Amino acid sequence: MQLYELAAQEDDRCFSPYCWRIRMALAHKGLSGETIPWRFTEKERIAFSGQERVPVLFDGQTTISDSWAIANYLESTYSDRPSLFGGTDAQALTRFVNTWTDRVLHAAITPLIITDILGHIHEKDRAYFRESREQRFGKTLEDVASDRDRKVLDLHQTLEPFRAIVRERTFLSGDRPMYADYIVFGAFQWARSISPFCLLQDGDPVAAWRDRMLHLYDGMSLRAKGYSV
Amino acid sequence: MQLYELAAQEDDRCFSPYCWRIRMALAHKGLSGETIPWRFTEKERIAFSGQERVPVLFDGQTTISDSWAIANYLESTYSDRPSLFGGTDAQALTRFVNTWTDRVLHAAITPLIITDILGHIHEKDRAYFRESREQRFGKTLEDVASDRDRKVLDLHQTLEPFRAIVRERTFLSGDRPMYADYIVFGAFQWARSISPFCLLQDGDPVAAWRDRMLHLYDGMSLRAKGYSV
Repeated sequence: MQLYELAAQEDDRCFSPYCWRIRMALAHKGLSGETIPWRFTEKERIAFSGQERVPVLFDGQTTISDSWAIANYLESTYSDRPSLFGGTDAQALTRFVNTWTDRVLHAAITPLIITDILGHIHEKDRAYFRESREQRFGKTLEDVASDRDRKVLDLHQTLEPFRAIVRERTFLSGDRPMYADYIVFGAFQWARSISPFCLLQDGDPVAAWRDRMLHLYDGMSLRAKGYSV
Repeated sequence: MQLYELAAQEDDRCFSPYCWRIRMALAHKGLSGETIPWRFTEKERIAFSGQERVPVLFDGQTTISDSWAIANYLESTYSDRPSLFGGTDAQALTRFVNTWTDRVLHAAITPLIITDILGHIHEKDRAYFRESREQRFGKTLEDVASDRDRKVLDLHQTLEPFRAIVRERTFLSGDRPMYADYIVFGAFQWARSISPFCLLQDGDPVAAWRDRMLHLYDGMSLRAKGYSV
């Protein structure tokens, strides 16, 4: 099994939140995948997948892209292994965690780390990254990143419904982590991989949950290249 | 079975979002509960429940308050009836829908309807409502309600992760409604019961989902006293 993952300047600094979801999902299923480092501008290297983004999973004769599709593929193909969702109803609700993370949580983290992303990605990716993101946001990366000390308070507010959960329980999914936890964790691992900026305050239940997540699977994500924040 | 529900000036204008969750949950389970209309200032009438808020469910010898606790009680007590959650994992994730609705969705709807609430509640509740809410918000109700035409755009933005779900599926829970749907629907039924202000635009997938919800259980919530918005 091979997983194409977004890498920074170094091959082993993998920082895509979507790739981290799948890395955690593979560990959850007890599967091992070889990481193939990939950069933003290497569109042709994953052209075989019929699209231009990672993660791409290559499993025997099967190629799957899009983290949600990959998670669903792993769940149905390796159904004898621990479930990522816990049934059809939980899978449906996990999709809400997915859309909330993609559209709300990522949007709150982006301004806090976007210039650090620029500083860590492969030099051949930098012009592409700046141009495509500045077009998306309609402003310079530096303008997106301005006023971080205020914007981090917006992140704390954004996390409130999630905080309410992990204040009362060990994991979003209850007493053990499931794919819903990996989705949210991917956002924090994205930041941790490339930014020294501190997203969470000491004493925040979200920080305690993140710490529990970092220690899963022999501290796999704790040992990954990143910042201790 | 008796359900103490928050009523407006009229006994049959029930508008609490939390009570609507339970009304829908009872219908889902095929249970019928007698509505006991209750007003904000009638704290002593529900003192038997050990707290001061509705919904309060009285079922034989058992009294339960708090909508989440009531839903859990119904699920375990009437386990032979259709499930409200679909298992332990889905129940855990439904809790996230609950905290998101309570803390994010309700906060986005409140300024759009708060003066309409004031205009509809029982006259004996009005001074209490104004005083307690103005203390909570630190401003007058009229200031909270100002600039609705801009704030409704914030609501549309807030709904984005939910919209992404109901754009691709019939219900939040998949192909049939579950308690997660009732939680979100309660917020819209709250507004519909007491406010003519239009929260959603035609063509919004959220409006189409709300319409499907309104037609459940023989149009129970469509027939309830409220505004056609």
